[in-house]
Amino acid sequence: MDPSQVDVPPLKDLTIDNITDNVKLINSGCPDPRLKYLLERLVQHMHDFARETRLSHNEWMTAIQFLTSVGQICTDVRQEFILLSDILGLSLLVDSIDHPKPASSTEGTVLGPFHTHDAPPEPNGTQIAHDPAGEPCLVLCTVKDTEGKPIEGVKIDIWETDSSGKYDVQYEGREAPDQRAVMTSDAEGIFWFKAIVPVPYPIPNDGPVGKLLTLLKRHCYRPSHMHFMMEKEGFDHLITALYLRGDPYETSDAVFGVKESLLIDLGKVSAGQAKTYGVKEGGKLMSYDFVLVSEKESRELREKNAMYAMKDLGLRMKLYNGLPIPEVD
Amino acid sequence: MDPSQVDVPPLKDLTIDNITDNVKLINSGCPDPRLKYLLERLVQHMHDFARETRLSHNEWMTAIQFLTSVGQICTDVRQEFILLSDILGLSLLVDSIDHPKPASSTEGTVLGPFHTHDAPPEPNGTQIAHDPAGEPCLVLCTVKDTEGKPIEGVKIDIWETDSSGKYDVQYEGREAPDQRAVMTSDAEGIFWFKAIVPVPYPIPNDGPVGKLLTLLKRHCYRPSHMHFMMEKEGFDHLITALYLRGDPYETSDAVFGVKESLLIDLGKVSAGQAKTYGVKEGGKLMSYDFVLVSEKESRELREKNAMYAMKDLGLRMKLYNGLPIPEVD
Repeated sequence: MDPSQVDVPPLKDLTIDNITDNVKLINSGCPDPRLKYLLERLVQHMHDFARETRLSHNEWMTAIQFLTSVGQICTDVRQEFILLSDILGLSLLVDSIDHPKPASSTEGTVLGPFHTHDAPPEPNGTQIAHDPAGEPCLVLCTVKDTEGKPIEGVKIDIWETDSSGKYDVQYEGREAPDQRAVMTSDAEGIFWFKAIVPVPYPIPNDGPVGKLLTLLKRHCYRPSHMHFMMEKEGFDHLITALYLRGDPYETSDAVFGVKESLLIDLGKVSAGQAKTYGVKEGGKLMSYDFVLVSEKESRELREKNAMYAMKDLGLRMKLYNGLPIPEVD
Repeated sequence: MDPSQVDVPPLKDLTIDNITDNVKLINSGCPDPRLKYLLERLVQHMHDFARETRLSHNEWMTAIQFLTSVGQICTDVRQEFILLSDILGLSLLVDSIDHPKPASSTEGTVLGPFHTHDAPPEPNGTQIAHDPAGEPCLVLCTVKDTEGKPIEGVKIDIWETDSSGKYDVQYEGREAPDQRAVMTSDAEGIFWFKAIVPVPYPIPNDGPVGKLLTLLKRHCYRPSHMHFMMEKEGFDHLITALYLRGDPYETSDAVFGVKESLLIDLGKVSAGQAKTYGVKEGGKLMSYDFVLVSEKESRELREKNAMYAMKDLGLRMKLYNGLPIPEVD
């Protein structure tokens, strides 16, 4: 940016009391009204935080070093910033705001840091988990719309840990995805596959986020669950998971993901199912009927909720690409 | 942390409206009352930010990726998180809060991301800059207390760029510090050395912070300055800099560091000075009389300001190691 091209308000002698307005002023040249609003609120909250806590230079430096270490431990297959967002409840909050679900549809929950983009597309019936120590589990699900009609061709991303509570990416030398697949629902909205019974596991606790949890005297466990991410044009993207009822961490998930509507009891494979799906009779069965909301309904609900929340906060806003910005600049 | 040892409130079905209180609740087991307060405010502000902006999942993911890239570009000699804090005005704010200065003493300013810990101790008279293209500048300063008495033995860390506006650490293959020194004031409070006239320069703009500035339509320049950091037992740590009056960026410093009291006009080396200090007559002269405040006075002022600010915010607080925490837990 050539400085001669930039209209800068005179900034000098900034103090505890006037720096916030001045930083907002210099950022207000941002041509994107949404980014401008995000920065305006970010600066206000960061500065208010420092003023309310009388943040010391040592604490600031500790935070700088902490954030640096969070960034530096990230790799292609480890996302410590998502983990940090998860344990601070931000991830669940953002999902709740961005993907409001009408009562008739399946609720969302945290994405978590372990989704990858390399899971292979698989046909119904695939064995997605290859850990011989895992307890076999037949997964038999449907995807329907809010009127009960089956949805064909939904892309369903599935991921779970092995029997020791680790995702494939947590092993060194991972060569190919395991305990992962991308399924597609058939004409009846059915998708089914062979997996293993999910187990509780600690989120990665050998990094800065694990250290923070220890300082906060919080445990790092997640209750047993299997992740599902569903995508089809015309429907709201659903990031969710199914949780096993009765898990020791059912009410203390380190990342706040559990919802009553996503808790399930595992069933038993019947003789007929055993024959139909080629699995052992009496084995574990996970079944669930997912309900997707249309993109239109979700967008309308999101925008209605946004405007209602803005009004509730006393803010005069309008929507820009579906997201709030100040009505008057 | 063994989960059976941890007292966890039941958490399930968290929503936009109740997640904040629940995250604060689970963090409230933190045995350190200051960290507990910091986290309590951090969670409140982060969540309020998401609610006020109706932060979208895409925006959240963009922020995750941005913070990750900020962390990953950091090295032993590059601190992009400090730079981010600087351009958002947080660094100056924290310095103002933590190091309040009575009117009689020298004001502080931003540390910046380029201080290193390897500058060599040097005697008075040292040539600290070795860039032949730099304009020589004799720097002749004193350090006194608020009563005007010279302070002996102050450790003074000094750093500046070369004539092209780059710090030594910005060059690959840096083997030893340059344009840096640690001086010590003598019995008369004097320290002096030979440097070069500071020049304006762009903060590093090839990383994520530079990209953010471009999106905000902000320039990335700092006005000409030389950094000074002063330390002596019994005195408040001073992080400051001297700025050249009339610099094109005097009122638009990208990191908000300029203060009227830290602006100086360069003088000319007199015939007598040329002889005394072994420099060329008529050359550039930077002189300044620094005034350090005692640690006790600074602490008392900081604590008084903190309690006053807390009261102003309507918060009932007490001090814990000099920093506020809630009076009643």
